[in-house]
Amino acid sequence: MSDRPQTPLLDRVHTPADLKAFSDTELRQVADELRAETISAVSETGGHLGAGLGVVELTVALHAVWDAPRDKIVWDVSHQSYPHKILTGRRDRIRTLRQKDGLSGFTKRSESPYDPFGAAHSSTSISASLGFAVARDLNGASETGHGDAIAVIGDGAMSAGMAYEAMNHAGHLGKRLIVILNDNEMSIAPPVGAMSSYLSRLYAEAPFHSLKDVAKGAVSFLPEPFREGARRAKDMIKGMAVGGTLFEALGFSYIGPIDGHDMESLLPVLRTVKARADGPILIHCITKKGKGYAPAEGRPDRGHATAKFDVSSGEQKKAASNAPAYTKVFGQTLVELAEEDSRICAVTAAMPDGTGLNLMAERFPSRCFDVGIAEQHGVTFCAGLAAGGMRPFAAIYSTFLQRGFDQVVHDVAIQRLPVRFAIDRAGLVGADGATHAGSYDVAYLANLPGFTVMAAADEAELKHMVATAAAHDDGPIAFRYPRGEGMGVEMPERGEILEIGKGRMIREGARVAILSYGARLKEVLQAAEALEARGINPTIADARFVKPLDRELILGLARDHEALVTIEEGAIGGFGSHVAQLLAEEGVFDTGLKYRSMVLPDTFIDQASPADMYAVARLNASDIEAKVLDVLGVARMEKRA
Amino acid sequence: MSDRPQTPLLDRVHTPADLKAFSDTELRQVADELRAETISAVSETGGHLGAGLGVVELTVALHAVWDAPRDKIVWDVSHQSYPHKILTGRRDRIRTLRQKDGLSGFTKRSESPYDPFGAAHSSTSISASLGFAVARDLNGASETGHGDAIAVIGDGAMSAGMAYEAMNHAGHLGKRLIVILNDNEMSIAPPVGAMSSYLSRLYAEAPFHSLKDVAKGAVSFLPEPFREGARRAKDMIKGMAVGGTLFEALGFSYIGPIDGHDMESLLPVLRTVKARADGPILIHCITKKGKGYAPAEGRPDRGHATAKFDVSSGEQKKAASNAPAYTKVFGQTLVELAEEDSRICAVTAAMPDGTGLNLMAERFPSRCFDVGIAEQHGVTFCAGLAAGGMRPFAAIYSTFLQRGFDQVVHDVAIQRLPVRFAIDRAGLVGADGATHAGSYDVAYLANLPGFTVMAAADEAELKHMVATAAAHDDGPIAFRYPRGEGMGVEMPERGEILEIGKGRMIREGARVAILSYGARLKEVLQAAEALEARGINPTIADARFVKPLDRELILGLARDHEALVTIEEGAIGGFGSHVAQLLAEEGVFDTGLKYRSMVLPDTFIDQASPADMYAVARLNASDIEAKVLDVLGVARMEKRA
Repeated sequence: MSDRPQTPLLDRVHTPADLKAFSDTELRQVADELRAETISAVSETGGHLGAGLGVVELTVALHAVWDAPRDKIVWDVSHQSYPHKILTGRRDRIRTLRQKDGLSGFTKRSESPYDPFGAAHSSTSISASLGFAVARDLNGASETGHGDAIAVIGDGAMSAGMAYEAMNHAGHLGKRLIVILNDNEMSIAPPVGAMSSYLSRLYAEAPFHSLKDVAKGAVSFLPEPFREGARRAKDMIKGMAVGGTLFEALGFSYIGPIDGHDMESLLPVLRTVKARADGPILIHCITKKGKGYAPAEGRPDRGHATAKFDVSSGEQKKAASNAPAYTKVFGQTLVELAEEDSRICAVTAAMPDGTGLNLMAERFPSRCFDVGIAEQHGVTFCAGLAAGGMRPFAAIYSTFLQRGFDQVVHDVAIQRLPVRFAIDRAGLVGADGATHAGSYDVAYLANLPGFTVMAAADEAELKHMVATAAAHDDGPIAFRYPRGEGMGVEMPERGEILEIGKGRMIREGARVAILSYGARLKEVLQAAEALEARGINPTIADARFVKPLDRELILGLARDHEALVTIEEGAIGGFGSHVAQLLAEEGVFDTGLKYRSMVLPDTFIDQASPADMYAVARLNASDIEAKVLDVLGVARMEKRA
Repeated sequence: MSDRPQTPLLDRVHTPADLKAFSDTELRQVADELRAETISAVSETGGHLGAGLGVVELTVALHAVWDAPRDKIVWDVSHQSYPHKILTGRRDRIRTLRQKDGLSGFTKRSESPYDPFGAAHSSTSISASLGFAVARDLNGASETGHGDAIAVIGDGAMSAGMAYEAMNHAGHLGKRLIVILNDNEMSIAPPVGAMSSYLSRLYAEAPFHSLKDVAKGAVSFLPEPFREGARRAKDMIKGMAVGGTLFEALGFSYIGPIDGHDMESLLPVLRTVKARADGPILIHCITKKGKGYAPAEGRPDRGHATAKFDVSSGEQKKAASNAPAYTKVFGQTLVELAEEDSRICAVTAAMPDGTGLNLMAERFPSRCFDVGIAEQHGVTFCAGLAAGGMRPFAAIYSTFLQRGFDQVVHDVAIQRLPVRFAIDRAGLVGADGATHAGSYDVAYLANLPGFTVMAAADEAELKHMVATAAAHDDGPIAFRYPRGEGMGVEMPERGEILEIGKGRMIREGARVAILSYGARLKEVLQAAEALEARGINPTIADARFVKPLDRELILGLARDHEALVTIEEGAIGGFGSHVAQLLAEEGVFDTGLKYRSMVLPDTFIDQASPADMYAVARLNASDIEAKVLDVLGVARMEKRA
């Protein structure tokens, strides 16, 4: 790797304690080297580049001032934690980021004592840090061996109610707690929400304040160091006198905004806070996502998650794809339907590109809503839209819909309101690992009365299901589909409205029936080929619906076969459980049926390619083949050999 | 009913339109009569008295000024909607509140067109109202036939992040939307959180402002009517010039605080807002919970939900209880354990009394945290406490834990942090109806890797499970228990630490085994008595754990019996599904087993007594008996007769 950057100072940093030996000037150089190392590493691994580059100086300053792991630095979301990982003993593995058996793309407790709290979903850091702060105060810092709790949270994450709940509680308790608001005015998508405008105003309306304003400022503990004439005090405290009333209303002291790339601002402010904080404090840092790497600056989409790339040009090295991505099929189909039906509208929770709703936002901006990282509100907002006569689609990843679960139950299902849930990233998702797996939505939706719940076996099926959902006004309806590209099947001109609760027979065979729910169908078909070579000709059906179940199809399969195997990209409690309940109720088990249900295993699966993750989950073609052989009692010796 | 109040004006109100005929003075009298009628009705039915009494004037004013159902009035939580129900055509049924086949204790879309959006869980009203406002603007008011969207939300509900998410989005969109903050400084529990302090300060720091301040005020559209000399303008706008910066930061115009019991303040302010609002507006009303009925004033606990009572004395007519309530057993046991272990602490989301944590708060105030109506934060705060070395108990009702589901998955389960979940109100809960049913927790917890999940069959079992959870540091653990009183079993001196994943045999029988998970055990025992009379002697076991399953127990029961019936107070996807998965995987179904799983049915069950609700659910003793007879093929004719 001859093109790796020169990093003479960084090479001397094995743990954050090594930073203590450096002068402030040297720390600035460490930051520069850390930036170069981060760019170099991500160019090899892919990942979230822009977020990390935005906090390089902040990372160095935090570790230079505080004493991790005794002090708990909690990175919100933790996309931005790559520089932190490099500084905390993981530089030797940083080029394994997001790969199988490599470093997680997020902070992870099991990975390092410097990661006191793992993250991946947004807006949890203040709650967790408050937990650390309270635990410290209850047990005594010396006993438990930890000191300060420091949350680093982005402005986008501030749109989530959870962050507000945590501040509300922290302000009430009044315990020493440090929150660093990393305001890059650009989370994943361009920022939305009044809070974002408010933060911009704080910045815009806060010219450099003169020293005399400080005494009037809200942060009463801060003045002295500045009165004593700390260098560049005027820069550091710009805005202090006018800003932050919202945070002050919530009981926080507010400092800022300060320039988050200026070590000469950061270091003295952090040192002062460390020396003098006696309650909850919010430090408002202005940073730039992608800072210092031209191809990543100012491009929220590309800077968010990138493929491997060429450092000098910034060009990404993505494999060419053959089949359309599910996400794009959803987005395009929705726009087509919205052309014909003015009641169709759509809601995303800060993921317009990830969900494919960018297409809807371009074509029908007034009917497409980005609510921010606010799944709770997003779901109930959809319920209100539906009650008001619209046909809303809530496009939320499986893993993030968990954040709006009660709203799905209480506001949508109980009221039987026709909200359409487009659930992307169903099943295992690859590089983002366990935190982003869409494992539970089948189970947590299919047991809700009045819900219609579908899964797409391929991209054409998805197109049908979007159309089916659009036309379905009789209660809520959901359809799930995996991350990535489709199977390459022929795409219909228009989506067809499917008959509710009816699956489809794929091929008729004998002895064993495999009933697939969702996109494992491709693997099932592969398994069938292998089974044929052994003289077994399985029947294959695509259930399409877990709710309502296709009773006729399922009971027919059970009646006509010696064995029935279900498969789904979800945890126990979903499709297989509903099938088992039906079979039990109908007395099918009374006289014997070789029934097996292939579901996600009872373990969180670390990042790898989706195929590798499904291998761990034992849901690939070879696993299906083995399961069928096992249940039929065929060639078990051979299989085990 | 000779003691019913005289209500000559109210008697003329059949729909809210009838209010338009009254003068402002008469409206004041209508309010007085409405208050008397509300007290009289709730004295017969029991229910949430204080909340309704606090908004009597507001209810009359809203319906006098706006035109429901064209305008959408959305009551948050809707405990306070009884006066609204009386005014909107349901007075003749108001004395059936919260009873079987009677009016719901909450707003309900299926009950009345005047309830545009049902509620019960907190803090959904702004999201729903924004949905109505956007739907109106997209479709045009005249087409869809609705106009303004008005959310009425309490100060307690403002502690929930969802309300903040909704305001953040509403402020961003800038559409006409009216939010009435009903600030009674007392939600269910005494208010907590910095927001609550902030609201108090707004009130305290806002003496009656003079008219000249108004021009400087934030609400630019308002001045004219006041400049024109509306009567009592000074009173109406007290505080306007100083208050509400937090709401203004979120993009709302702020009006208030105003006296929510003074019709002469309310009516002109609402009329002005109706005439001139052109964006999101928050009207801050100060009210008193229980207003006008001395026994209910100033008693947040009693005013929240009351039993039937004597109007003149306020004395409640509660049946004497024999067995201790599960809630109390939990609270007392936790305090006992906390005496011996300083790491034990507890978190409630605004339900200290309902969860029994009031006992903990009294004994160990520094180790008991009321986070407000903030389940998301509450769960992750517990995760932080656990990561910081504490042994936190999150005491959250089953139905409300849904609001923190993602935090349970992402912050607790994936990190395998030992948070203890005390899940009260498991199963059907009675008068609060479908919205409060604890139906899903077994399903949504038991499929999370690393979780230990228990259910208590009786109050002694609960005591053991609290002790078991306290001692369990190997990952998260949950235990559920029903609303109400225990079975009256003998209580142990101390809770015993149960062996993880081991059930208990209750009685050995033959032919059929009934495996109970949770508090249906009482019904199972009753069913067994009835079955014995028919010569059937069922084996009965208490599973205790859904996760990990007691494989040995379950496979033994399957092996030794012709039939196996599971029963639980939860929806499909829970205990029965885990048992079926085990039986399938072990090949038990291959050769035949009469297996049945009794779960909550696929329907939302309206309020009634818990026993009546379980009758609808077909999970009572007679249903168990019938199920066993059916599965054994015994006496089916007799049963059906």
